[in-house]
Amino acid sequence: MHPQIALIMGSYSDYQKIEPALEIFKEFGIDIEMRVLSAHRTPDQTVEFAKLAESRGLKVIIAAAGGAAHLPGVIAAHTILPVIGIPISLPPMNGLDSLLSMVQMPGGIPVAVMSAGRGGAENAALTAIAILALNDSALTEMLRNYRRRLADKVIARDSSLQWKLNGG
Amino acid sequence: MHPQIALIMGSYSDYQKIEPALEIFKEFGIDIEMRVLSAHRTPDQTVEFAKLAESRGLKVIIAAAGGAAHLPGVIAAHTILPVIGIPISLPPMNGLDSLLSMVQMPGGIPVAVMSAGRGGAENAALTAIAILALNDSALTEMLRNYRRRLADKVIARDSSLQWKLNGG
Amino acid sequence: MHPQIALIMGSYSDYQKIEPALEIFKEFGIDIEMRVLSAHRTPDQTVEFAKLAESRGLKVIIAAAGGAAHLPGVIAAHTILPVIGIPISLPPMNGLDSLLSMVQMPGGIPVAVMSAGRGGAENAALTAIAILALNDSALTEMLRNYRRRLADKVIARDSSLQWKLNGG
Amino acid sequence: MHPQIALIMGSYSDYQKIEPALEIFKEFGIDIEMRVLSAHRTPDQTVEFAKLAESRGLKVIIAAAGGAAHLPGVIAAHTILPVIGIPISLPPMNGLDSLLSMVQMPGGIPVAVMSAGRGGAENAALTAIAILALNDSALTEMLRNYRRRLADKVIARDSSLQWKLNGG
Amino acid sequence: MHPQIALIMGSYSDYQKIEPALEIFKEFGIDIEMRVLSAHRTPDQTVEFAKLAESRGLKVIIAAAGGAAHLPGVIAAHTILPVIGIPISLPPMNGLDSLLSMVQMPGGIPVAVMSAGRGGAENAALTAIAILALNDSALTEMLRNYRRRLADKVIARDSSLQWKLNGG
Amino acid sequence: MHPQIALIMGSYSDYQKIEPALEIFKEFGIDIEMRVLSAHRTPDQTVEFAKLAESRGLKVIIAAAGGAAHLPGVIAAHTILPVIGIPISLPPMNGLDSLLSMVQMPGGIPVAVMSAGRGGAENAALTAIAILALNDSALTEMLRNYRRRLADKVIARDSSLQWKLNGG
Amino acid sequence: MHPQIALIMGSYSDYQKIEPALEIFKEFGIDIEMRVLSAHRTPDQTVEFAKLAESRGLKVIIAAAGGAAHLPGVIAAHTILPVIGIPISLPPMNGLDSLLSMVQMPGGIPVAVMSAGRGGAENAALTAIAILALNDSALTEMLRNYRRRLADKVIARDSSLQWKLNGG
Amino acid sequence: MHPQIALIMGSYSDYQKIEPALEIFKEFGIDIEMRVLSAHRTPDQTVEFAKLAESRGLKVIIAAAGGAAHLPGVIAAHTILPVIGIPISLPPMNGLDSLLSMVQMPGGIPVAVMSAGRGGAENAALTAIAILALNDSALTEMLRNYRRRLADKVIARDSSLQWKLNGG
Repeated sequence: MHPQIALIMGSYSDYQKIEPALEIFKEFGIDIEMRVLSAHRTPDQTVEFAKLAESRGLKVIIAAAGGAAHLPGVIAAHTILPVIGIPISLPPMNGLDSLLSMVQMPGGIPVAVMSAGRGGAENAALTAIAILALNDSALTEMLRNYRRRLADKVIARDSSLQWKLNGG
Repeated sequence: MHPQIALIMGSYSDYQKIEPALEIFKEFGIDIEMRVLSAHRTPDQTVEFAKLAESRGLKVIIAAAGGAAHLPGVIAAHTILPVIGIPISLPPMNGLDSLLSMVQMPGGIPVAVMSAGRGGAENAALTAIAILALNDSALTEMLRNYRRRLADKVIARDSSLQWKLNGG
Repeated sequence: MHPQIALIMGSYSDYQKIEPALEIFKEFGIDIEMRVLSAHRTPDQTVEFAKLAESRGLKVIIAAAGGAAHLPGVIAAHTILPVIGIPISLPPMNGLDSLLSMVQMPGGIPVAVMSAGRGGAENAALTAIAILALNDSALTEMLRNYRRRLADKVIARDSSLQWKLNGG
Repeated sequence: MHPQIALIMGSYSDYQKIEPALEIFKEFGIDIEMRVLSAHRTPDQTVEFAKLAESRGLKVIIAAAGGAAHLPGVIAAHTILPVIGIPISLPPMNGLDSLLSMVQMPGGIPVAVMSAGRGGAENAALTAIAILALNDSALTEMLRNYRRRLADKVIARDSSLQWKLNGG
Repeated sequence: MHPQIALIMGSYSDYQKIEPALEIFKEFGIDIEMRVLSAHRTPDQTVEFAKLAESRGLKVIIAAAGGAAHLPGVIAAHTILPVIGIPISLPPMNGLDSLLSMVQMPGGIPVAVMSAGRGGAENAALTAIAILALNDSALTEMLRNYRRRLADKVIARDSSLQWKLNGG
Repeated sequence: MHPQIALIMGSYSDYQKIEPALEIFKEFGIDIEMRVLSAHRTPDQTVEFAKLAESRGLKVIIAAAGGAAHLPGVIAAHTILPVIGIPISLPPMNGLDSLLSMVQMPGGIPVAVMSAGRGGAENAALTAIAILALNDSALTEMLRNYRRRLADKVIARDSSLQWKLNGG
Repeated sequence: MHPQIALIMGSYSDYQKIEPALEIFKEFGIDIEMRVLSAHRTPDQTVEFAKLAESRGLKVIIAAAGGAAHLPGVIAAHTILPVIGIPISLPPMNGLDSLLSMVQMPGGIPVAVMSAGRGGAENAALTAIAILALNDSALTEMLRNYRRRLADKVIARDSSLQWKLNGG
Repeated sequence: MHPQIALIMGSYSDYQKIEPALEIFKEFGIDIEMRVLSAHRTPDQTVEFAKLAESRGLKVIIAAAGGAAHLPGVIAAHTILPVIGIPISLPPMNGLDSLLSMVQMPGGIPVAVMSAGRGGAENAALTAIAILALNDSALTEMLRNYRRRLADKVIARDSSLQWKLNGG
């Protein structure tokens, strides 16, 4: 089956910043389509990708970009699929630029924005999965388990801290 | 059928700010559940709502809040459903506070953030609809029509401007 | 002759904000092409405009937009003509969003950015004229006169202030 | 006796950032309860802790968190005990996010906010101690002595600088 | 009995901004000391007030100030009592200045900071009351009731919204 | 022929930051005039340069400066040539200072602003070239080729990513 | 005697914003020189003013400007007299632009910066007077009296508040 | 003769940040008084210093502080001497906090603010010298020479750049 999720980066130099999303998809055993598409340097390819996304079977598009970060907005302009934006933090504006460029989309053309950083990349993947899980009970169960593991890690940290404080 | 989308406001005083979302839902003929739930003033009701949301048939939760704006994050902590946040802009921080409070969620517990303002409320509704449309071809068609109408309005403005400039 | 300068607004609601640019063009007797083109709502029209701009005889493109303000960047992605951006200030981010969205363009695809506000709209027009003036000695002379008039107004204000202070 | 002060961190990775608070408590010989509780990853444990805090004999709760930093607000929603927030500074927002998420609490549910950084962690501990000292004359005396030592260090630095400048 | 809480404003022009705190104290039937003391214009009076506060029976000091907003910090430098700061929002910096001036206190001299605005003034009063309530079971009960009333208002709003939505 | 483009730096310490512009000019085979002129330390030389620029055959002036960054504005005050500003990012304000100092020019005296950083320096050079290209078909062709190379690099990255993902 | 203090505004539209400075000078009976000089629109006049200031008997120069606000910096570049800057707050950047443009001057060319707003204009005047007072015992005495009147006003407000609170 | 300039640091840890000021004073052969005085940790010593400054023969006071940075304001509250503030940049707020805490002083109690960083420390010293130079022709001449040396360094850099570019 064709992947239902695409993960687009505006520049290959963003690869490391989106790896936490890839780890989530691997953990959930989900195949994705991954592309390097620049809203400004390969605009025709970007537009073509966005226009064909729905017919090619994609359900959710994640787009990561830094600086002016127009990528998710440009993609959203050409598709009605849910588009999730991951701002990439770059000096000197440290992601405030890409956050605002993504989140301030005009009414009618939504982009769902995550934070810049590791957590944001993870959450972009989890949001895409949560959307697919609405019609996939196996994914739903995996999401529940993922949450439990998250909680268990915190609980374990909490317990070991108590143990250590009590001279364990 | 029980509504599949819930729109939660942290305070009834935010009602006017979320009305653009209501207009979208009305335009699409979609019934939603609407609640006033405060993460800080009625935390038990908020947690209970979030925990039961999935089993009650909800698919997407939109939460609007201003200031510290913990509402969507608190809801997301108790459900794996997609949660969309609408920051409410209040003086003196003008929405930078609620935007950051929503968008900086930690890895694992995603909130999909829109802009503060009319466009953000509209886009929260459209994102929820786009998610449902993945399994609802009628909604898909309505989204396509909505986009066409958006474009047509701009094109009409552009044409009337040309006409006016040409001494029409 | 076809206008050599195009002034594009992302939304007709920005019209009032760009009027200072129109006043400059009127003062210089320069015909321009004016369009309403939205990077997100009429992306195909925007791309087509940008791709054909050079062959249609345009020399400089000015694009005004608020919020995510991708318009000048999207146009710049499809033309090598100089593109000048006017950020439109809208609440609640008051133009910081549109300024950063325009100015943080990636290397290779330049947008020349002005300030949000009356002065920025005037300066966008004056920059476009200064570019054309490089090969138009009449425009050069007009620019010099414009500067002289600007100076004369300040000098007159300064003089009348001295006169008033001296009990004139 | 059960500790009267609890120090909660939203993630064990914040441990190093709150150590200055621990040093203060050690210097004052005060036993505290320390927990790892995440408002988002272990919300049930967090709520339970907050609800039982008063009956378990706690008097003051300090909560440290980064990013969206909802922890002190979520705790404050479930207890009337004084809650002190320590924003944790993380890239790329460098603590502006956690500061605003804590300080912008709605009327009715207060969080008392310190600065991000070493001084803020120290001051969170000192504020908790100052609250307990209102009914503990020994603590009051220790706080006075602490202030005197702070002053003495500055005075000593000032003196040694004079001595050095005078060729001492 | 001498009031246990002092509410200090840096300028009488801040009176209106601190009225929400006064309303809380009135609702709780708590007498407070209220002063106009400027860290910069009446520094001697401010220092004298701070130095004598503890011996005069005060337990908590709330200080509201705008702009450079040194007032709570200057008071905290001369007392070990808990000091709560209310930033006053003034144009053009809109409270970011007073927030940072208060919250960035150096280690050793704590100020507990609330938000600028109505909620912050209320929360300053509630924090002071929560501190006194640690040794006053009547106040504790009043705080619990206050929280219940806050919740009841939100619940009533939520109910009337449901009723209205259901055609009530 | 005298160079048509001048690249001015406010301090020789900015040299490294403007090198990306030099690389572009080298790639296009364009000779430029390069100067170190400080608006504040050598104001007479700066003014003289600006006043004579047009008569010496210059067409476009690029000025890079950090901090208060008055250089492009001071130059623009003395010439009607297009002036392009490159903000230099310096701690602790990280270029927000120089960006605002350049972009907030008053109406009548335009400066066309690029981003701080590598991309901004490149784009300053490309904007200057795009202006000259309006009357130089060879430059126009070179700009088109440059854009193609930019696109080709992204396309190659995209292809190699596909190849790698497919186990190539 | 020629005035020893000059108050320069970058635009006559700033007149109202600097009136608090004029009121101070009037209260102290000090004649000043007042000019409208634009760093960008009348740069030659500005430079000439700055170069001649010292020889014309001026001792301190106050310069008020908004936006890019280069005026005090440009003046400082041409004189060794103390230069005091008053940022003018204008939308949409609300004075952050002019504050940074003034305060971020490079080493060697100082500008002493006040706040935007009424207080900043007053303080610019008072700083200029404090400088002259170093060699004018009458001014010194007037400054002391001014401070006493400031204190007396706050003390009177404090007293009338006590009186009112005590049912006076 | 007693030094006429005092340089106060709020913490000895700021010493390195104010060294550029010391270098200026050394270059000008000016003896200064240097103190470590904390507005919050040694407030009595700070107030005493400020109150006696004038009678001890001081003419100008420079105060450097980071974070809440109340030091120059507290000193200014107790003296009519000119007070110059040097904000110290510390993470995570990077000097925006100390800049605003210094520059937003209320009307009546002026602090003249420099930038955070090396240039600001130099300019604080140069402003103090410029004030003394108003009645000291030797200092005036030294300031003129200092400016010339600054200019000469830039001119030399400019010349060597030309030489290098011309294959020198």
